[in-house]
Amino acid sequence: MHTHAQTGPAGRRAGGLPGDLAGDLAGDLAAIVGRDHVRTDDGALAAYARDATPLFHARPQAVVLPGSTDEVAAVLRYATERGVPVVPRGAGSNLCAATVPLRGGIVMVLTRLDRILEVSPAELLARVQPGVTTAALADAAAREGLLYAPDPGSRTVSTVGGNVATCAGGLRGLKYGVTRNHVLGLEAVLPTGEVIRTGGRLWKDVAGYDLTRLLTGSEGTLAVITEATVALLPAPEETGTGVAYFDSLADASRAVAAVIADGIVPATLEFLDRKCVSAVEEFAGLGLRRDAGALLLFGDDGSRRTVAGTLARIGEVCGASGALEVTLAEDVARSDALLAARRCSLPALSRLGSLTILEDATVPRHRLAEMVDRIDEIADRHGLRIATFGHAGDGNLHPTCVLDPDDGEGADRAHRAFAEIFAAAIALDGTITGEHGVGAAKLPYLADRIGDDQVALLRRVKQAFDPAGILNPGKLGS
Amino acid sequence: MHTHAQTGPAGRRAGGLPGDLAGDLAGDLAAIVGRDHVRTDDGALAAYARDATPLFHARPQAVVLPGSTDEVAAVLRYATERGVPVVPRGAGSNLCAATVPLRGGIVMVLTRLDRILEVSPAELLARVQPGVTTAALADAAAREGLLYAPDPGSRTVSTVGGNVATCAGGLRGLKYGVTRNHVLGLEAVLPTGEVIRTGGRLWKDVAGYDLTRLLTGSEGTLAVITEATVALLPAPEETGTGVAYFDSLADASRAVAAVIADGIVPATLEFLDRKCVSAVEEFAGLGLRRDAGALLLFGDDGSRRTVAGTLARIGEVCGASGALEVTLAEDVARSDALLAARRCSLPALSRLGSLTILEDATVPRHRLAEMVDRIDEIADRHGLRIATFGHAGDGNLHPTCVLDPDDGEGADRAHRAFAEIFAAAIALDGTITGEHGVGAAKLPYLADRIGDDQVALLRRVKQAFDPAGILNPGKLGS
Repeated sequence: MHTHAQTGPAGRRAGGLPGDLAGDLAGDLAAIVGRDHVRTDDGALAAYARDATPLFHARPQAVVLPGSTDEVAAVLRYATERGVPVVPRGAGSNLCAATVPLRGGIVMVLTRLDRILEVSPAELLARVQPGVTTAALADAAAREGLLYAPDPGSRTVSTVGGNVATCAGGLRGLKYGVTRNHVLGLEAVLPTGEVIRTGGRLWKDVAGYDLTRLLTGSEGTLAVITEATVALLPAPEETGTGVAYFDSLADASRAVAAVIADGIVPATLEFLDRKCVSAVEEFAGLGLRRDAGALLLFGDDGSRRTVAGTLARIGEVCGASGALEVTLAEDVARSDALLAARRCSLPALSRLGSLTILEDATVPRHRLAEMVDRIDEIADRHGLRIATFGHAGDGNLHPTCVLDPDDGEGADRAHRAFAEIFAAAIALDGTITGEHGVGAAKLPYLADRIGDDQVALLRRVKQAFDPAGILNPGKLGS
Repeated sequence: MHTHAQTGPAGRRAGGLPGDLAGDLAGDLAAIVGRDHVRTDDGALAAYARDATPLFHARPQAVVLPGSTDEVAAVLRYATERGVPVVPRGAGSNLCAATVPLRGGIVMVLTRLDRILEVSPAELLARVQPGVTTAALADAAAREGLLYAPDPGSRTVSTVGGNVATCAGGLRGLKYGVTRNHVLGLEAVLPTGEVIRTGGRLWKDVAGYDLTRLLTGSEGTLAVITEATVALLPAPEETGTGVAYFDSLADASRAVAAVIADGIVPATLEFLDRKCVSAVEEFAGLGLRRDAGALLLFGDDGSRRTVAGTLARIGEVCGASGALEVTLAEDVARSDALLAARRCSLPALSRLGSLTILEDATVPRHRLAEMVDRIDEIADRHGLRIATFGHAGDGNLHPTCVLDPDDGEGADRAHRAFAEIFAAAIALDGTITGEHGVGAAKLPYLADRIGDDQVALLRRVKQAFDPAGILNPGKLGS
C-alpha cells in the first residue's frame, strides 16, 4: 500500500506522453473505435484514474472502449508502435491498484464486450466476453441448472475478464478452488496485436505451455483477454449454512483443523474476529452474538442428505472443539442472512472511518490464529484499528484497517503496519496476497515473497509477451 | 509420431557435441556429482536413448544422476556455459518422446531424488522430491487417510517430477482434474542455475505470474523440477464401480451425456470399444461380454451412502439410454477387477502385434462417438488395426494401433493415419494431446492446434527461461 499517489513504485512520474502526442491520441483512437467510444473529458479521466483501491490514483490521457477483438488488436498495435501505455480494465473493483494507469496513456475499458456467447449444459461450459459480470454469468448458468463456482465478494460488479486477470477467489474456494481452476480457454490479444486462443472447450489439453493459467492472474500485463471459456458444474441440489461462536480465534482455528482432520472439506469455512462481528451486528442487526471472540461460518452444498449430514457433523466437531454455541440455519432465508453477515464485513467496517484499507494475506490454515494475533499486536503497536475476517478454510485473511477522519498521518502508519503484516505472513510460510493480486499496491513486497531471481524471471516472461512494455506498466513484470 | 529416429522434427542430426568436448564431459560431470553417478557406457547410453515411446531414439553423450538440488544447478550452469543439451527425466514412461535426447548431450535422471519429505494431514499436502513414484506418493498419503487424486496409467513406475512435467492425467480426471489441479508449489532450477520456489503450501496465492502452472506441463523445457508440494484430499470412505454394455459407442456416448445431464459428475467414466473389450477379455479372462459394441466403466467415491446412490442412479440412466446390461460391482474385489480391465487395455493390445502405438487425442465429450467413427474409418482406409479406449467423461481418447510383425511399412501408414486422426480431433474442437504431452512426437502438429502466433510466443517464453536453449531442445518451445 502506497500513500504517494501519482507515482509508481519506482517513483516515476505518471503521464508519460509528450503533449503533442497526447493531442493526437484521441483522434487516432476514434479512428479505430469510433468517436463515441473515446473519452478525454476531465470527468472520465478522473474516474478512470482510480480503481477500488484507496490512495492510488493517476490520470490517463484517454479512455477507450473497444467493441470487438479486432478493435482491441488495432488499439494495441497502435500503442506498441507509439510506445503508449495501455491499462486494460473491467469494473475496476480490484483492491490492489491493478488498474490504476501509473504511467498515464490509455485506459482500455472492456465493459462493452458484455455478451454471454454460449452456455452449454451438454458440455458444462460457458463462453463469455470479458465485460460480462460474474453475477450475470452465474445467473445464466443457474438458469440452466448449472453452477459457476468462483464467487468473489465483488461478484455483482466485477467482470469475468477482471476475475480471470486477477485469478479471483471467493467464499467457495476451499472445495471448488479459485478462478484458475475453472478457466478452460481464453482468447487474448498480445500487445503486438496478434490474437491467440489458448486451451479451449476441454478439461484435458496439454498442447503447449499452459498459457491459459499464465494469463490467469497476470493482471493485464501480458495480454488483453477478449473471451473466456469457463467450466460449469451441475448446480448442487441444496446449500446449507451454520454458525459457531468461540471464545477466541485460536479456538475457532482449532475447530477448523478438527473439521479437516475429520475428513470434511466443506464449500465454505469463513471467520470474523470480534471486531468484525461487532461492526457487522451494528450495521445489519442480524442477531449475532457480540460477546464471542470469533464467529465461524460454515457451509456446504450437494445432495440434500449429504448437506444435512455434513453440517450436523461440522456442528458436532465445533461443539467438541469448545464452541460457545452452534446454530444450523433452518432454512434458505436464514442461510442467506448468515452469508450476508460475512459478505457485509467490508461495508460494515467502512462505516467506522473515513478510509478503509482492505488487505489480503494468506498463511497455512493451521497458523490462522497465530497470524491474527500478530496482526492485532502490530495494529496495537501502531495505534490502528484493524479488524480481520476471511476464509478460514484456506488461511486467507483480510485484515481491514479503518482510519478516523481526523487521523492525519494514519495512512502512513497503516502503510508501515501492513508492511509488517506481509513480512509476518511470509515468515509463517504464507504469502502477501491470496486472491486480490499484486498490482501497484503489493509490488514493493513481491521480491520478499518470491525472491529476486524469480522477479527477474517474471520480467523476462513479460518481455516475451510485451517487448515494448506498453501493457499496464509499473505492475507485475516491471 | 515420427518414424525417422535419430533426427529431430527439423531433421537435424542428433549428437550435437564435437568429439573432444564429449570426451571431457564425463570428467566434468563426475567432478559435480561423483564418478558413481555418471554413466557413459554403451548400455546406459542405449537405455537412455529411448523412453516409452516406440520408434524414437537418439543416444546421449552422458547420463548423469544428481543427488541434490545444488548438483542439478551445477550441472545446468555447466551445460549453459558450454551449450550442452540437457534432457531431464524420471522413469521415462511418457508416450510422446518427451525425454528422448534428440540433440544428444546429457540425460539428467532424477530418480536418486526419491524422498518423500513430508506428508501433512493438518495441511492436506505432501512435499516430495521429483524421483518419488506416483504410487509411492499415493501410498504414503493413504497411510495417513489421505488421497493423492491424480492416477496416470503408469503410476507404479512414473515419477511425480515426470507427472508434473507432463501434467499427467488419469482415470479420475473428470471429478478431480489433472496433475495441474493438485500442484501447490515447486522448487525448480533454471537452465542458468538459479533455484526458484514457485507457489508454496497454500491453496490461494497470486503473488506473481503462475509459474507453478507454467512449469506444470512444460515437459522439461523450461526448468528442472527438484521438489513438488502437492495437495491431498481426505480419502473417500468408499469407492465403487459398475459396468454397462452397449450395442455401439454412439449409445455409450449418449449414456455419458445423459449421466452428466442428470447432474452427476462421477470420478470415473471410462470406455472400451469392441476391439479393446475383445483383447482385454482374451488377455485377462474377466468374464466381459464380447458381443457388445462398447463397454462403459463408471465409478465414484465418497461416503458409503453417496456412492451407492450415485452408482445406482448411473446404472438407471445407462439402462434408460439403451444399455444391454448393467452390473454394479458387489464388492471391492470385483470393483478392482473391473478397473483392472480398463488398466490392462494397453498390455492386452500390445500382445496382438510387434509394435503398439498408443496415442492420445481429446474432443468435447459429446463428440466422442463421432470421433471414434472417424478413427475407425481412417484405420480401415489405411489397412490398420486401431482399437480405442479412454476417458469418456472428458472426451480423452487413446486410439491404439497394433502392427503385425510382418507389416514392413506399417509404421509409415500408422504415421499417416495418426496425422489424419489429429486433424479430425482439431476439426471437432478437440486437441492433439489431452494428457500425454507434445514431446517430439506431437511437435509437428502443434501449430495446427494452437496457431503459428502462439508457437512463436512459446518460443519467446522458452527463451525467457533458457537463453542458451540447452534444456530438452527439439521439444516444446523449439
